Amino acid sequence: MIDRGDVEAAAERLGWRVRRTPSVVLDADPFGHPVALKLELLQHTGSFKARGMLNRLLTAALPPGSKVIAASGGNAGLAVAYAARELELTAQIVVPVSAPAVKVERLRALGAAVTQTGAFYSDAYAAAVGIAEQTGVPLVHAYDQPEVAAGNGTLALELVEQVGPVDTVLVAVGGGGLVAGVAAALAGRARVVGVEPQGCPTLHAALLAGGPVDVEVGGIAADSLGARRLGEVCWAVAKETGLQSVLVPDEAVARARGRLWGQLRVLAEYGGAAALAALLTGAYLPEPGERVAAIVCGGNTDPAEVTRDPS
Amino acid sequence: MIDRGDVEAAAERLGWRVRRTPSVVLDADPFGHPVALKLELLQHTGSFKARGMLNRLLTAALPPGSKVIAASGGNAGLAVAYAARELELTAQIVVPVSAPAVKVERLRALGAAVTQTGAFYSDAYAAAVGIAEQTGVPLVHAYDQPEVAAGNGTLALELVEQVGPVDTVLVAVGGGGLVAGVAAALAGRARVVGVEPQGCPTLHAALLAGGPVDVEVGGIAADSLGARRLGEVCWAVAKETGLQSVLVPDEAVARARGRLWGQLRVLAEYGGAAALAALLTGAYLPEPGERVAAIVCGGNTDPAEVTRDPS
Repeated sequence: MIDRGDVEAAAERLGWRVRRTPSVVLDADPFGHPVALKLELLQHTGSFKARGMLNRLLTAALPPGSKVIAASGGNAGLAVAYAARELELTAQIVVPVSAPAVKVERLRALGAAVTQTGAFYSDAYAAAVGIAEQTGVPLVHAYDQPEVAAGNGTLALELVEQVGPVDTVLVAVGGGGLVAGVAAALAGRARVVGVEPQGCPTLHAALLAGGPVDVEVGGIAADSLGARRLGEVCWAVAKETGLQSVLVPDEAVARARGRLWGQLRVLAEYGGAAALAALLTGAYLPEPGERVAAIVCGGNTDPAEVTRDPS
Repeated sequence: MIDRGDVEAAAERLGWRVRRTPSVVLDADPFGHPVALKLELLQHTGSFKARGMLNRLLTAALPPGSKVIAASGGNAGLAVAYAARELELTAQIVVPVSAPAVKVERLRALGAAVTQTGAFYSDAYAAAVGIAEQTGVPLVHAYDQPEVAAGNGTLALELVEQVGPVDTVLVAVGGGGLVAGVAAALAGRARVVGVEPQGCPTLHAALLAGGPVDVEVGGIAADSLGARRLGEVCWAVAKETGLQSVLVPDEAVARARGRLWGQLRVLAEYGGAAALAALLTGAYLPEPGERVAAIVCGGNTDPAEVTRDPS
């Protein structure tokens, strides 16, 4: 469990190491209701995860040259590699043998040692856990560690500093490392709604089952939101703060992304546009005058793909 | 000639009709010196021009249903079409017969009547002038009218509200409709530097010649910065305020755009990245501690193209 104090401490710790990403307030165009967007895709490594990983590694207070290990070929891996380089640590990133060469190259360009093993990410993760246990090298989880969630949540503090009080914040959910931090940061101050593509329903399933359960994942946003199970950190915050959940179809996620580019010249990854799909579909239906914000949480995508989105 | 009072009046007039686009302050990464970016590509129609065109048409105070005419298949045309639709006017946009179908479609989608005539933009412009003279329909110039420049300059007022005082603002120059407004808005408060690709040197040539002269235009940013001659409005402001000019090679413009996407997930058109090329090349070399801002003024490009930029 984390609370607002943890997020405030993380913000203090991070200081100038994270970019204070900008927010923009839109009228009803193009999402049908006024909405403040936190443009977190402008963060180092193109997603919010740099916040959590920097906070995780700063908290660990490792001597320069120390190793850390993580399993992820996606945004989490990039952020661990970046955070390690910034703090003069060495990151070992474990990915399956099937990881695309471009992702491996990107990790290496950030100075990480990349180990390819196993057929799936679950195998790579198990290998990383094994290495961490054998060697004592600290394992950095992609989302389910308190320091990771608290670091991610710092963007919510910035948001309200930038746009003033909000009634509701829409946040895309994968493993819950972002929404946990946002809900902790804004507990008692705003309603937080987790938005999930129908193919990646970890929070939805946890709320139905009364706790995190494994789910099948798929669909267009699975590369960034396709965690198999909600984290325990997120579940604790969800129970404590009354976190809400809505589901959106892939088609609406693609439409939200198309509008972000077509009418705002913001080019997000599908996971980064997912929160806005809840406004487009009415999965979340604000009252007139309700002050709604949404986190555009990542932009790691092939720009050419956006030209194929509907709008 | 316009001055700060004209820009402040324009800001008052525009009110909620323009987006208050966000600014982000970066450390030395990725442009070698700390820089505040005004992300004006998020404006309606994807460039600053919506500000100037809305101010031009609001100032004209035409009855609903009135016609206006302009010649441009680019950002100016889009902005005139948008502004006219917002104010319940009818825009006639004149483009040469060679204008790409996609640009014509985009104008029509905004409700404009598109007339295709002549081989070059100069022919289309001459035709628009002729129609305006014959019919009395107001002609909206792409950059060289005081109301257009004053409206564009409102982004500079927002910039200093958002990031505090600045020492220097880097602005890309085509016909000078943006830099004129920025220089007028910040006269006596900040140094304004016009940045031009070597292939589009209207300001540079005017400063050398002692007044606007026709120049040959070309290069990668010519679609947005390729005006043939600096406007008289800009020239008057340039003389009054001591506007500076630097040139940058196309290669640096492409590199600036590559870095905007690669390290910030901002996808600009070449003209929108040109101002930052001055930092990359040292064409503008700030003092240590100098508070530098740059305007990312447009994002109307094919996203797929950015993957071919160097970084």
